[in-house]
Formats: sequence, C-alpha cells, structure tokens
Amino acid sequence: MTPQTLIDETQFGSDGLVLAIAKDAEEGDILMVAHMNEEALRATLRSGTMTYWSRSRQQLWRKGETSGHTQHVEEVRIDCDGDALLFKVEQVGDAACHTGHRSCFYRRFDGEGLVNDGERVFDPDEVYD
Amino acid sequence: MTPQTLIDETQFGSDGLVLAIAKDAEEGDILMVAHMNEEALRATLRSGTMTYWSRSRQQLWRKGETSGHTQHVEEVRIDCDGDALLFKVEQVGDAACHTGHRSCFYRRFDGEGLVNDGERVFDPDEVYD
Repeated sequence: MTPQTLIDETQFGSDGLVLAIAKDAEEGDILMVAHMNEEALRATLRSGTMTYWSRSRQQLWRKGETSGHTQHVEEVRIDCDGDALLFKVEQVGDAACHTGHRSCFYRRFDGEGLVNDGERVFDPDEVYD
Repeated sequence: MTPQTLIDETQFGSDGLVLAIAKDAEEGDILMVAHMNEEALRATLRSGTMTYWSRSRQQLWRKGETSGHTQHVEEVRIDCDGDALLFKVEQVGDAACHTGHRSCFYRRFDGEGLVNDGERVFDPDEVYD
C-alpha cells in the first residue's frame, strides 16, 4: 500500500480535514459521514480499519474502539475535486450509529415530520458507559 | 410540504452550510457531495429539484441548470447529529459530475494509484461553453 498518491490528490480543508463517507459494501446504504485528517487517513489505509478525526474530542477516533463495531475497508474512492472520500466498508456488528441504528441516517423526512424507519441493532445504554 | 421540521433539525455550520449527499435512487451509488444553506434546502424541498449552495461562486446552484442534468428528489434523510442530509434522487441524463461521469467518485484507489473506472456519460467539452 502506497498511500501517498491518494493523499496527494486529497484536498484537505483549511481545518486539515476531508470528508469521509462510509457506505456498506454489501447493502449499499450510507452508514455514516465523518472527517479525517491526514493522520487518520494514513491510519485507515495502513490498518484497513476506518479511523476518523473526532472534531468534538479533537483526537483520532478508531471507529468501534468502544462499541466493537469496527468498519473494515473494502474499497476507497475519491471525488472529482478531491474533497470527499467514499469508503465501502464491512460494518462489524451491523451498527454504525452511536444511537444503535445500523445507519446514522435513520430518520426520513416525509414532507411534514421526521420518521424513524431505520433498523436499530443495539441499545446504546447497554454498550456505552 | 412543511419544511420547517427538517430545517429545525438541521445543524447548519458556522458557515451556514450543511452537507448534502446525492445518491442515485435506482442504482444506489453516490453521485456527488455538495453543500446547502437554508435557502438552498428550502428551494430543494419546494421545487423537488436539488439546489445547492456553490461555495466557489457564492450563489445558489440549481444542479443541471447548465447541463440539463437535474436531480429530482425522491427521498430526504437526516443523520443523527443533523449535520448531513442524504437525498435519494433521480439523475436526469445519467451524469452528475461536471467531468461527464455518472458519479463524481469515478476514481478508485487501488493501493498504489488512482484508477478511473467510472462510467462516462458525456464529453464536457460538448456541453459547457
């Protein structure tokens, strides 16, 4: 793995971050959207496991380190202007969202309100302290 | 359509923008990622046609106004923390990317370099002035 080609093409923003979209490799649904800095991207490519930059905690965030719901990288794509990365992943434990849902996009706008029609995989009260 | 519920849940950033992901409703692939301000989101919901905020041009950007490749909204979803919207769309003309590719994510990282394996629908030299 020679990550430099990808890193050279990636347009990190003024905050040093690039958008990272995780898509389920099997089902094709979008699991979550987060950010990576160069270190997180390098760690992701090196380990094959999604590693983000947590903007709230200001630290590297290896997805699933608390919940065990890691994401294994199966494919990496970059968009035309290099400011977004798309990762097809295998989602261990079937839940990407800290709310226990399979996808963070578990709410659909039906024209009037938000409908929660997302699959819920676990109860977060039983997973997180 | 009462967009206020969705707008109230949307966490626009300090720049007034929220992330908008366009996913092909039929094929399921990610077509593009861009941004919306509140006005663009309202226009999108009102018209049923994807309208973004162009950060480079600093103006509303009705997708396809030049190329004719508009995007009709079929479903709207919001993520857990409200800072990303996911739109399932019908892509008119089959090309979302200004490069003429079906998707902006037409380049795959194969571990060494970037491989262009995306479907190209039109030649941009023949579409744009």
